[in-house]
Amino acid sequence: MKNILLTGFEPFGGETVNPSWELAQALHGEVIAESHVVAVQLPCVFGEALRRLDEALRLVGPSLVLAVGQAGGRCDLSLERVAINVDDARIPDNAGAQPVDEPIAADGPAAYFSTLPIKAMVAGLRDAGYPASVSQTAGTFVCNHVFYGLQHRLRGTGIRSGFMHIPYLPAQAARHPGAPSLPLPTLVAATRLALTLGATVEEIRVGGGQLD
Amino acid sequence: MKNILLTGFEPFGGETVNPSWELAQALHGEVIAESHVVAVQLPCVFGEALRRLDEALRLVGPSLVLAVGQAGGRCDLSLERVAINVDDARIPDNAGAQPVDEPIAADGPAAYFSTLPIKAMVAGLRDAGYPASVSQTAGTFVCNHVFYGLQHRLRGTGIRSGFMHIPYLPAQAARHPGAPSLPLPTLVAATRLALTLGATVEEIRVGGGQLD
Amino acid sequence: MKNILLTGFEPFGGETVNPSWELAQALHGEVIAESHVVAVQLPCVFGEALRRLDEALRLVGPSLVLAVGQAGGRCDLSLERVAINVDDARIPDNAGAQPVDEPIAADGPAAYFSTLPIKAMVAGLRDAGYPASVSQTAGTFVCNHVFYGLQHRLRGTGIRSGFMHIPYLPAQAARHPGAPSLPLPTLVAATRLALTLGATVEEIRVGGGQLD
Amino acid sequence: MKNILLTGFEPFGGETVNPSWELAQALHGEVIAESHVVAVQLPCVFGEALRRLDEALRLVGPSLVLAVGQAGGRCDLSLERVAINVDDARIPDNAGAQPVDEPIAADGPAAYFSTLPIKAMVAGLRDAGYPASVSQTAGTFVCNHVFYGLQHRLRGTGIRSGFMHIPYLPAQAARHPGAPSLPLPTLVAATRLALTLGATVEEIRVGGGQLD
Repeated sequence: MKNILLTGFEPFGGETVNPSWELAQALHGEVIAESHVVAVQLPCVFGEALRRLDEALRLVGPSLVLAVGQAGGRCDLSLERVAINVDDARIPDNAGAQPVDEPIAADGPAAYFSTLPIKAMVAGLRDAGYPASVSQTAGTFVCNHVFYGLQHRLRGTGIRSGFMHIPYLPAQAARHPGAPSLPLPTLVAATRLALTLGATVEEIRVGGGQLD
Repeated sequence: MKNILLTGFEPFGGETVNPSWELAQALHGEVIAESHVVAVQLPCVFGEALRRLDEALRLVGPSLVLAVGQAGGRCDLSLERVAINVDDARIPDNAGAQPVDEPIAADGPAAYFSTLPIKAMVAGLRDAGYPASVSQTAGTFVCNHVFYGLQHRLRGTGIRSGFMHIPYLPAQAARHPGAPSLPLPTLVAATRLALTLGATVEEIRVGGGQLD
Repeated sequence: MKNILLTGFEPFGGETVNPSWELAQALHGEVIAESHVVAVQLPCVFGEALRRLDEALRLVGPSLVLAVGQAGGRCDLSLERVAINVDDARIPDNAGAQPVDEPIAADGPAAYFSTLPIKAMVAGLRDAGYPASVSQTAGTFVCNHVFYGLQHRLRGTGIRSGFMHIPYLPAQAARHPGAPSLPLPTLVAATRLALTLGATVEEIRVGGGQLD
Repeated sequence: MKNILLTGFEPFGGETVNPSWELAQALHGEVIAESHVVAVQLPCVFGEALRRLDEALRLVGPSLVLAVGQAGGRCDLSLERVAINVDDARIPDNAGAQPVDEPIAADGPAAYFSTLPIKAMVAGLRDAGYPASVSQTAGTFVCNHVFYGLQHRLRGTGIRSGFMHIPYLPAQAARHPGAPSLPLPTLVAATRLALTLGATVEEIRVGGGQLD
């Protein structure tokens, strides 16, 4: 049977929980699109997160990889379009490092696009009643770092891979007035569908861009 | 046994569902704080909504009233502080009326404050992990109309009453990219707690204001 | 000749300048709508601001009063619709006081509406190319405190009075990434027009409300 | 004497003016950093905009290129970090074309970074009191199209080039309630400084990233 690698992050930025790891754990062991879901936690640490990712790729041998990260302030499941080759940390990572304008791969291209069918995933999620959108930036912190590193490692392999940002959990938003949130059951159900779509559908040509 | 009147609205503004009525229905018949919860749907129609409210107040004889309305674009449970004596409709109501700068009660004061313990309710909701806040404006559409009319009718009675705005459901937000949402189970559980707090706790003095 | 009283505030909240006082000073001494503009600075201090306002009202004997305040984060000239009878300070005022849920006038009504022709002012400002809108809340800090106190003092006199919030200056926004701003010349020209309109036009019935 | 090429766009999206062209015209003919500023208008048309850019690059032979575009809804001067190799138009361009997920250069890399000292430019603009920031996405419309095409043409030449987004003018924002704006004199002065910095300073390592 094939494997799906689903990564989430440990908490960061003063939080005690990270919804990306909560949902990854919840889906660990499920069979989705005839594949075993294997959840792996990544540290919120530049460099170390990619070493852990390397290990997971080697052990799991996935046919599909979805990395998930928390985006405090966003309101929906954001399928990231592009990863850029730069670390620019607004806050220190969990090991205290705060790189500024350093390349992730010294010899890598400026960017990689997601190889997931993100337009089809957004369309399918919305049809099923889950708020979702295409995002044009994954930021420049550890999320983008992992997304870029993932696409760099899997370039040319034909293995679909990409990144999805998710909102806070309600209990986190309760301490961040003004921030949107979605509870874990919603995130889990929506991610289950996102993985099904990611593993089975072809990409479609529908708008998902932004003016500026 | 005492009764709690919980009102929700019918859908408006092109929506096919209104989360306020969904949650009111879900709590109808429950016993909260030793009171029966009676849910009543109000039309999204200036004037007619208050006639329906009059009827409900007469039939239910409540010891507590919470009116709930949908606030597309908000992210949390917003306990409204103040209702103002003006209708100013940006869109037509469900009967096609669009009043501009007309008083709700010709002889009424400019505003009424909520008589619910809104600061204590927000604090209790947040403690339980539900995003909540005090709001300084309920707008000038049918929600504020009902809130003002409610406070006008119950002035001087000692019956606690007020208004709470809630976000879209996820399925609504799926068609309004950029809008926050919360699913029905979260809204129902949070409103159950809000009613318990509203019926039982004393108001507290904690900040809930805004600079401008 | 008649007098227009134009008040601005001293800086607060860590700022070294307050655009409301900058623009009031700039218009001080001008003749607008056949009236002398008299600018008076108010302290950002609960209570003391109203004592200074009392003094100014007595000395100036205005036929029109416009109080102006900074609203960091807003993008346009906001004509406030309503002042509410509550102080609820999210930060301390310039004297260190931080009242929570205290009435401004113990014997006053819950709110006063602006007596300026705010809809006509917004329409005129927009026609002239200045971004402007009606706002349904002036917050619960010293701005609302002064607005409420002003309307309370002038109730029943027939003297038009009200409150306008304005954005940061660009140099302030340069230290608050994400905050809109307008430069002083734009604010001064727009306020000159706002005063002209406030002194000369009749109110009109056009929409300026919000759904929630 | 050296030349600076400064491009602006024609109006689009229902606007009758484009602030980027207004400011480019205003600076046309000035000498900045010992270089002539040559302003060229680009059509808001996929493909045709790059043909016009090719022509301008050939005629002007610039030592520095700054392309500027309107970003309705943004509040400051946004120095774009990265251009991505995709057209995904949410609205039709001025010739009616609306490409979805098409590469800009079939043989080009996924992205190019700006070769302007964007961190130093943002720092210098803020020091001078102009609101400015680094942006991680230039969108997927004609602005990004021109930005990518520009960097593709000038790759390896050592000629500094990049893209800056600017807000609406106040008269535009007057018809888009809720949108920030800056007047032309502010935009012109800030862009003059941006060009001076772009032509003369070395890049610096200061944070300008975002978490997600």
